Amino acid sequence: MEQLHPLQYEELIKNEIHADIGFAGDLTSTFFIPADRNATASIASRQEGVLSGIDIALFAFRVVSSEIVFEKYMEDGSSVKAGDRAATISGPARAILTAERTALNVLTHMCGIATMTSRMVKAVEGTRARITDTRKTIPGLRALQKYAVRCGGGVNHRFGLDGAVMIKDNHLAGFAGWEEGIPALKKKLGHTVKVEVEVDTLEQLKRLIGLPVDIVLLDNMTPAQLREAVQLVAGRMITEASGNVSLETVREIAESGVDIISSGALTHSVEALDLGLDFHP
Amino acid sequence: MEQLHPLQYEELIKNEIHADIGFAGDLTSTFFIPADRNATASIASRQEGVLSGIDIALFAFRVVSSEIVFEKYMEDGSSVKAGDRAATISGPARAILTAERTALNVLTHMCGIATMTSRMVKAVEGTRARITDTRKTIPGLRALQKYAVRCGGGVNHRFGLDGAVMIKDNHLAGFAGWEEGIPALKKKLGHTVKVEVEVDTLEQLKRLIGLPVDIVLLDNMTPAQLREAVQLVAGRMITEASGNVSLETVREIAESGVDIISSGALTHSVEALDLGLDFHP
Amino acid sequence: MEQLHPLQYEELIKNEIHADIGFAGDLTSTFFIPADRNATASIASRQEGVLSGIDIALFAFRVVSSEIVFEKYMEDGSSVKAGDRAATISGPARAILTAERTALNVLTHMCGIATMTSRMVKAVEGTRARITDTRKTIPGLRALQKYAVRCGGGVNHRFGLDGAVMIKDNHLAGFAGWEEGIPALKKKLGHTVKVEVEVDTLEQLKRLIGLPVDIVLLDNMTPAQLREAVQLVAGRMITEASGNVSLETVREIAESGVDIISSGALTHSVEALDLGLDFHP
Amino acid sequence: MEQLHPLQYEELIKNEIHADIGFAGDLTSTFFIPADRNATASIASRQEGVLSGIDIALFAFRVVSSEIVFEKYMEDGSSVKAGDRAATISGPARAILTAERTALNVLTHMCGIATMTSRMVKAVEGTRARITDTRKTIPGLRALQKYAVRCGGGVNHRFGLDGAVMIKDNHLAGFAGWEEGIPALKKKLGHTVKVEVEVDTLEQLKRLIGLPVDIVLLDNMTPAQLREAVQLVAGRMITEASGNVSLETVREIAESGVDIISSGALTHSVEALDLGLDFHP
Amino acid sequence: MEQLHPLQYEELIKNEIHADIGFAGDLTSTFFIPADRNATASIASRQEGVLSGIDIALFAFRVVSSEIVFEKYMEDGSSVKAGDRAATISGPARAILTAERTALNVLTHMCGIATMTSRMVKAVEGTRARITDTRKTIPGLRALQKYAVRCGGGVNHRFGLDGAVMIKDNHLAGFAGWEEGIPALKKKLGHTVKVEVEVDTLEQLKRLIGLPVDIVLLDNMTPAQLREAVQLVAGRMITEASGNVSLETVREIAESGVDIISSGALTHSVEALDLGLDFHP
Amino acid sequence: MEQLHPLQYEELIKNEIHADIGFAGDLTSTFFIPADRNATASIASRQEGVLSGIDIALFAFRVVSSEIVFEKYMEDGSSVKAGDRAATISGPARAILTAERTALNVLTHMCGIATMTSRMVKAVEGTRARITDTRKTIPGLRALQKYAVRCGGGVNHRFGLDGAVMIKDNHLAGFAGWEEGIPALKKKLGHTVKVEVEVDTLEQLKRLIGLPVDIVLLDNMTPAQLREAVQLVAGRMITEASGNVSLETVREIAESGVDIISSGALTHSVEALDLGLDFHP
Repeated sequence: MEQLHPLQYEELIKNEIHADIGFAGDLTSTFFIPADRNATASIASRQEGVLSGIDIALFAFRVVSSEIVFEKYMEDGSSVKAGDRAATISGPARAILTAERTALNVLTHMCGIATMTSRMVKAVEGTRARITDTRKTIPGLRALQKYAVRCGGGVNHRFGLDGAVMIKDNHLAGFAGWEEGIPALKKKLGHTVKVEVEVDTLEQLKRLIGLPVDIVLLDNMTPAQLREAVQLVAGRMITEASGNVSLETVREIAESGVDIISSGALTHSVEALDLGLDFHP
Repeated sequence: MEQLHPLQYEELIKNEIHADIGFAGDLTSTFFIPADRNATASIASRQEGVLSGIDIALFAFRVVSSEIVFEKYMEDGSSVKAGDRAATISGPARAILTAERTALNVLTHMCGIATMTSRMVKAVEGTRARITDTRKTIPGLRALQKYAVRCGGGVNHRFGLDGAVMIKDNHLAGFAGWEEGIPALKKKLGHTVKVEVEVDTLEQLKRLIGLPVDIVLLDNMTPAQLREAVQLVAGRMITEASGNVSLETVREIAESGVDIISSGALTHSVEALDLGLDFHP
Repeated sequence: MEQLHPLQYEELIKNEIHADIGFAGDLTSTFFIPADRNATASIASRQEGVLSGIDIALFAFRVVSSEIVFEKYMEDGSSVKAGDRAATISGPARAILTAERTALNVLTHMCGIATMTSRMVKAVEGTRARITDTRKTIPGLRALQKYAVRCGGGVNHRFGLDGAVMIKDNHLAGFAGWEEGIPALKKKLGHTVKVEVEVDTLEQLKRLIGLPVDIVLLDNMTPAQLREAVQLVAGRMITEASGNVSLETVREIAESGVDIISSGALTHSVEALDLGLDFHP
Repeated sequence: MEQLHPLQYEELIKNEIHADIGFAGDLTSTFFIPADRNATASIASRQEGVLSGIDIALFAFRVVSSEIVFEKYMEDGSSVKAGDRAATISGPARAILTAERTALNVLTHMCGIATMTSRMVKAVEGTRARITDTRKTIPGLRALQKYAVRCGGGVNHRFGLDGAVMIKDNHLAGFAGWEEGIPALKKKLGHTVKVEVEVDTLEQLKRLIGLPVDIVLLDNMTPAQLREAVQLVAGRMITEASGNVSLETVREIAESGVDIISSGALTHSVEALDLGLDFHP
Repeated sequence: MEQLHPLQYEELIKNEIHADIGFAGDLTSTFFIPADRNATASIASRQEGVLSGIDIALFAFRVVSSEIVFEKYMEDGSSVKAGDRAATISGPARAILTAERTALNVLTHMCGIATMTSRMVKAVEGTRARITDTRKTIPGLRALQKYAVRCGGGVNHRFGLDGAVMIKDNHLAGFAGWEEGIPALKKKLGHTVKVEVEVDTLEQLKRLIGLPVDIVLLDNMTPAQLREAVQLVAGRMITEASGNVSLETVREIAESGVDIISSGALTHSVEALDLGLDFHP
Repeated sequence: MEQLHPLQYEELIKNEIHADIGFAGDLTSTFFIPADRNATASIASRQEGVLSGIDIALFAFRVVSSEIVFEKYMEDGSSVKAGDRAATISGPARAILTAERTALNVLTHMCGIATMTSRMVKAVEGTRARITDTRKTIPGLRALQKYAVRCGGGVNHRFGLDGAVMIKDNHLAGFAGWEEGIPALKKKLGHTVKVEVEVDTLEQLKRLIGLPVDIVLLDNMTPAQLREAVQLVAGRMITEASGNVSLETVREIAESGVDIISSGALTHSVEALDLGLDFHP
């Protein structure tokens, strides 16, 4: 499993802890726990799922105190069962308690994404379809959320508005048609950028074929329509299905033969995985 | 309804849009949509819920272009039905398209929180219980998430580690007992700060009574235990229930007579409310 | 003594040193002192007082060069006499000279606060009164100034506008009266937040009693009035005196029986403690 | 009077207000003052002094609400008497109350500096001496403090380590002597930078004469020694006196004939000028 | 011509001006030019070239004073001759003088890039080749430099390491071969990302054909080799030539039939275009 | 050779790498190079020149991975020949490849400046003239560019608008004449700041003599005029020549006897020195 670069999360975590302690500090730890008290605690899962973000969580503890040391038992992308320990942290008790919430907040969120992605990926096993995300991400968390999708076995859609051209229904609302617009765009566009176009109907799809388009997004089509679309495209473009993607529907969508299935809910409606911090007696 | 201060979200939104356009800009708008094309679009809900974050969403459009103007039809805290328009935006089509996703990402998240909070608040109507959040928030979003809870009719628990003392089970794991620890803490603590202590059993609660504690957190108790706890406390402390709080259980918890019910899921497991941007023909 | 978290001062100190060296660097050290010259110097007090900020001062040296090492002889909160050495720094002479002023600027300021606080605390010894600060702080330095107050034996008033409700005369200027305003406020306010109200007269105080208020600020009252106020309150609220608080007056104020005495001058009119850097021959 | 550039204070003020409101906002204003209540208030002095920082104070109000308008009656550098109004602010009562403390904190500090500087400047009237500051400033506030010195009629010493060469006693502690060091330095130093050297005795001064030095700092000399030093220098260098500079001593120092008198206390031990915010009935 | 988004340059320009004025401000303007003096000045070219960055230059003036107004006579991408005025600025003379250098520094750099790009583009007119840049950019300026290339009629290569896969000689130095490496990579790579591979010889090129590669970079080949490479590829990949690209060589390279010619010197070795600020009498 | 302080480049380099990897990371390294592959590579020059920025380049590698170690063979200011290795880097192959471009972009730029400066310095050897830069720098790079000038043997002109007074033609366009303006300025100006005035003709120069001016900038004069100017000044001011300074002209300018020759092209029109990264087999 590859890892996020610290530049992609260090400021987020530092700012979060800084804001959490504010001008005053962690009043509870500071005034209730002796400064010289050390402790050991484990990050343990209370649910089955997929790990993502363990290095970020451990970084949070290290931000609070450079005296904290840890042992990591699992890497991101690993399956966890209820009771599994991902890592053990040792150091000043005050610092562990101060960092606990920030560490768990980011970890449980990322594990939630990885876990749901992994379920989707398993549901389409044996088909050609790959599971991908969207730009429907939480502000400030895109790099982390997209990484969590990869931890769950998915691949990533474009990362930002600068990553690929994506012409959607709103781009066509009363504007340039594809026939003139796409060739004009291609003249100004760098040669490293792909072009994707969204269609809602098979009629639209037919108009699209033959244009210099790399990917077609088949939005809100039924499995039957998707199957027909895949046949129409016949390998000339990458086919991507979106809309109504859930654990219940994803298998049937995949069996239509599309290359890619994208789901906004993977990142916009995340159910946190339940992990906690257990202090050793 | 009060409003967030722009200082609480401007940097988040600017950074998000800046990262989204990257070095290259919005390739699709820039190269597909004519620079002089104007458009009008509405932010419309596709689901029933409670509005939260409309000013932040509108700010996102204004970040992309100062030429964008808008009309706002609803304020945060309003109920929305499927089809309701919250606001209409007019200006350069390129800019509207560039800002669309960032605006909706933050808005659908905040409305999701406000909507679930509002359902919880309605579920306990007629009891003395108030619904509150926790520090189980998404990194970088605490101010926005806690505001969304207020939009849904909830009140806020402490905002950070500097807002109140909160002694939980992990603080007691092998450390100072309450009997010496709390009086020692009170001597160093400013006079404006409240002290809350978590208990898991009625036995613990009995030990706590008589100590200078403002709030007791009754964690993971059954409704019957909560009722007994409320009677034991007899108004000497504020009572707060937590654990297993859901739309299904919250009424029964509230009927135990507790003052406060806190739910982490309000902010850590948010289901986005479905809102979209409809371009006017 | 607890310590500030590095997040609370690192950026301040780095920015200060960065601005001090600017585009050009420390011209004097760079062009006058050989690069390979090492030196040892001590931070020594030239006055009696209380130490505060020694770790921040040492951090300033480390910012300029990671080759600097130090020995610390005293912790924050210690009493110092003229001639006492708080720490000794060794490393590249250039770096020590570059950091010297920033280190001393922050240290002498914080020691100044701790020293005056400590004098006030000693002046009220034997009474129930505790010395506290206000929000009358220098922009950018609140966390450091409030920490220095704690180093001197004081406790902290609220840290920011988000830390407690504080209704002062200006809040009442033509607005909602307490009788409707405070209950309305309590409905929206989280259960962890205390409410303080300022009164200038005993008549106002009488009106306040019975309202859900945690702390009463008795502003600019004579010792006699304060005594009467304390009797009127009779333990139903915490009593805080403010106005005309100085080393000369504080004992008499404390003997009125108030719980808290707050002084803005502790942080808004600081006389720096004289500490210097002595190079070892 | 020239003005600070907004780049020199906007971030300081925004960060201060942002930290003051934190995640939660101004709880008192938000929950006690109606959102639609407007108010007018004046910034008034309660003491005699010199104004400095009025634009920064007004900026603080504007940061909190762009709906705030103001009238300014005095510019920085003006003399104020007790009761004088410097400006009047009108707008949402909540916003005025939220900004009040930040505005006054910076204003009273800067006026304190300008006032003391002005007293020093008056004390030396008729001599050739000009009053100047040092680098003994509060971290984060150097631009503002040095500007306040100018408001009081002083001039500024170097702004940072990059502004001039300044060889002090600590630079000589066991290092290169002036005779080789200064010529070597001049070869690497740009032609726009002046060189100042500190001496403590007349013997040192004699050794210095003839070297390519622009300014001599005469540290901790008696008025008699200063007079002799000025005669020795005979216009070949600018003469600057420092050490034991106070309102009591400054006239006698000036009468020695030195060109410049520098005082660290102007910025390191500031007594705030008493200004307040009066709400109009 | 499209425009850069202000988020892509505002911070750069503000920081530059802030650092330029430092703690002290623009000493010359402040102390030599009266505060109430107004002036008008034109940005004029002293050389033939292509305009790029005019909005950024004008922004620099507006940063220094919001009282500055301007008229713009030309848009980015326009040809300029010696003597042409691009814009006229009016406002406080102090502010114009303070901003002058920052404005011109960025403008002359960007115009230099646009001008050289435009010459290259003209040199290949009539061939299929498009001129493109590289990631050999000045730190902090990539968005501006790549935009300047577009102003000159070029197109952009990938913007960052996240924009496309680009396998170069150093990636192959003792590592995975293409045959296993590229298919493995394609499984993890999102469907919106293109793959480019660098080859130095025709033998390497032959090995590459048939692999799922979108673009081949033909590095340091002679025109004859390039011609042969283009024939070998036969439209199955986009062909890009690099190495030894200059105004002298570019036409011959283009006539080989390659699709793209990339030049690092466009951004790493920029000769500024000579533009100046002329004050109106 | 002195060194830049890390505060002067760390943020620049971190931001550049962060922007380069974006939300996605280095797609090529991550998905093509195995995580556990280590490599060694050398920074080698392909041209003759002067080294500048080697520590910054090495820092770039360390930003990407703290596991990278290096050996440095040369310090800034050293002469390099084609084939010379400046340093060798070892560590994770992925990290080396990710950092390569940022490291080389900054290094080749700085070496380009040092190399050209060094040629100028050699060209004037034996005269009294010193080579200096201007404020015509690339936004964000001034500290680095001016340091590179020092690496090449030049000295620096003022670093910013706060470093010296510099009255140019545009300052005089219709404003205060020198005769009143300069004495007025001197009264407000600190005693550590020098005053420089630009003249274009010998007539202007004659008017200037006798005013309290430290440096005269002789702009765009012929060698003959410069000689005459130097004689007129007769040591009363430092003489600086500017305009039409190139490797071809600089010797003749220097032989006029001026003290300083300043060149904008040293920093505004930099030709990068060709250095590359060679992986060891």
